[in-house]
Amino acid sequence: MTSLETTTERSGRLRADIAEDPTRYRVLTGERPTGLLHLGHYFGTLAERVRLHDLGVDTFIILADYQVITDRHAIGQVRDNVYSAVLDYLAAGIDPQRATIFTHSAVPALNQLVLPFLSLVTEAELHRNPTVKAEHAASGRALSGLLLTYPVHQAADILFCKGNLVPVGKDNLPHVEMTRVIARRFNDRYGQVFPEPQALLTSSPEVPGLDGRKMSKSYGNAITLSMTADETAAVIRKAPTDSQRRITFDPAGRPGVSALLTTAALCSGRDEHDLADEIGDAGAGALKKLTTTTVNDFLAPHRQRRNYLAQDARHVASVLRIGNQRANEIAQQTLDEVRTAMGTTY
Amino acid sequence: MTSLETTTERSGRLRADIAEDPTRYRVLTGERPTGLLHLGHYFGTLAERVRLHDLGVDTFIILADYQVITDRHAIGQVRDNVYSAVLDYLAAGIDPQRATIFTHSAVPALNQLVLPFLSLVTEAELHRNPTVKAEHAASGRALSGLLLTYPVHQAADILFCKGNLVPVGKDNLPHVEMTRVIARRFNDRYGQVFPEPQALLTSSPEVPGLDGRKMSKSYGNAITLSMTADETAAVIRKAPTDSQRRITFDPAGRPGVSALLTTAALCSGRDEHDLADEIGDAGAGALKKLTTTTVNDFLAPHRQRRNYLAQDARHVASVLRIGNQRANEIAQQTLDEVRTAMGTTY
Repeated sequence: MTSLETTTERSGRLRADIAEDPTRYRVLTGERPTGLLHLGHYFGTLAERVRLHDLGVDTFIILADYQVITDRHAIGQVRDNVYSAVLDYLAAGIDPQRATIFTHSAVPALNQLVLPFLSLVTEAELHRNPTVKAEHAASGRALSGLLLTYPVHQAADILFCKGNLVPVGKDNLPHVEMTRVIARRFNDRYGQVFPEPQALLTSSPEVPGLDGRKMSKSYGNAITLSMTADETAAVIRKAPTDSQRRITFDPAGRPGVSALLTTAALCSGRDEHDLADEIGDAGAGALKKLTTTTVNDFLAPHRQRRNYLAQDARHVASVLRIGNQRANEIAQQTLDEVRTAMGTTY
Repeated sequence: MTSLETTTERSGRLRADIAEDPTRYRVLTGERPTGLLHLGHYFGTLAERVRLHDLGVDTFIILADYQVITDRHAIGQVRDNVYSAVLDYLAAGIDPQRATIFTHSAVPALNQLVLPFLSLVTEAELHRNPTVKAEHAASGRALSGLLLTYPVHQAADILFCKGNLVPVGKDNLPHVEMTRVIARRFNDRYGQVFPEPQALLTSSPEVPGLDGRKMSKSYGNAITLSMTADETAAVIRKAPTDSQRRITFDPAGRPGVSALLTTAALCSGRDEHDLADEIGDAGAGALKKLTTTTVNDFLAPHRQRRNYLAQDARHVASVLRIGNQRANEIAQQTLDEVRTAMGTTY
């Protein structure tokens, strides 16, 4: 069995155990607030996050604002992006009374863990991390110290709250593995403080952007959760398709048409081929109309809750304030244990 | 002019300006608590530190406990080493009412600065740092993430309190240069927050250990400040010399004899050759006797104050508590400015 097969099998058992005893788990998930959340986030991470949270798993969601500047210079509209993400979490059903939503930069004791953790890994190990390599290649810039040490910040993000469950796609398995290595080495050297978190491999569908590439804010091919129905219609109208009247599902040959079919399929729970057959010879116009309706219907309840919540700007601020306060308390507790273990108490 | 000559000239002017207007300066100095402070520290850094402090320069002294594990696995008796160093600072005349003595691991907001700072430097720049290279070579280990990022922690140590003056030997000039680069890049990118600290090149004499190599705890060739007069006599008695009766100053040919002459010279303010002439044909025994008396006479007042202070263990703890509290307040203030500049306020 490959390592991926092993992890997939283990994730299956893990899923069963979580369903049986959710309170044994604390999940750490989150994202870099580089832009607005879109359908790709919804199906890729948000849905699974809400599912675990609804099962009763203790949920920590980090808005990793410092990680915005790992592969770029400009931090951008980070505050707006953070507030917008919080609105999406709440609209998607995350209950701020039960979940801890916090920002990376607001928790100094979490960030301090990066220093002892850096002593536990070698430069060579940092270099071997495939995500660091891929992001470095994609950035087209010299490798920054922050990107190089990215796996160590992620370890701190997970371990500060003793998270023992990390939902990831297969590309991010090496991060969890590095976190496990750091936890193990710390415990071996200084005494037991950290759990070795388990990766929960999520096989969420990859959501194509409107041009058939991966959906991404930076490609300008995203349907964001915060768009209005009209804005959604407008971006779908502008999506590149082709002049063939007959609609078929053929991602390689017809990326634009197929991306719309997949989008409509995900939002309706139907199959791309069935949808294509249904549209038949009605052409791209009909496909776009169907996709628009399907997406807008699917997102309508989310957007309605989102708009309602957005009316009270202080609510989001208060969710973050409470989340950051909770994260700080936990981080300080963990840091105290780390200090005791290392003998740096004065 | 070489860069070293430029720095030497600039340090001369800086010295004049400090003497004229000491309150314009905040100095950041300190050390890694890897062992007990010895005569090498005394003449190398402590004397200059006390001089600046006595002039009225605002003094911050960091006990960089996390930096102990940059080049080794074992953190050792870090707490004992820290307490012992504080005793030496106080005995040497540092006034804890006016100076801020603190430990690296006690100031999370300082450590958080490492993250945004890491985004401002490239891996290649970290690699070019000569101190990192030298310490890595000396360690005989794989380069740890903590050693690789050492110049960035140092930048955080200096900039968290907006230190604008850093006394260094010429080997550590690249650290101050890196700190200046980080301050400049941060200010350029996010707005003015940090001063660009100036290096004050200290031309303190290199103190040889009892075997003629550099005095270092790890070589076991050190006369620590905390030794008793008897312990000092014992280690000097065991120092390797030679069988030549006539005492001459010849560091290359007679390292052991010459190290004792230099030690006695430093502690008496006299010249090595004069001392050698004075001893003449009386041999190594007489040299050791003279060195022992000179060192013990020189350190007697320091040791007396040290012993007096050591009687009240709570005093050192309280000095650190107050220092750490002050460092935390300042670090949090600076971190707030950093957050405002970066837009990461929520």
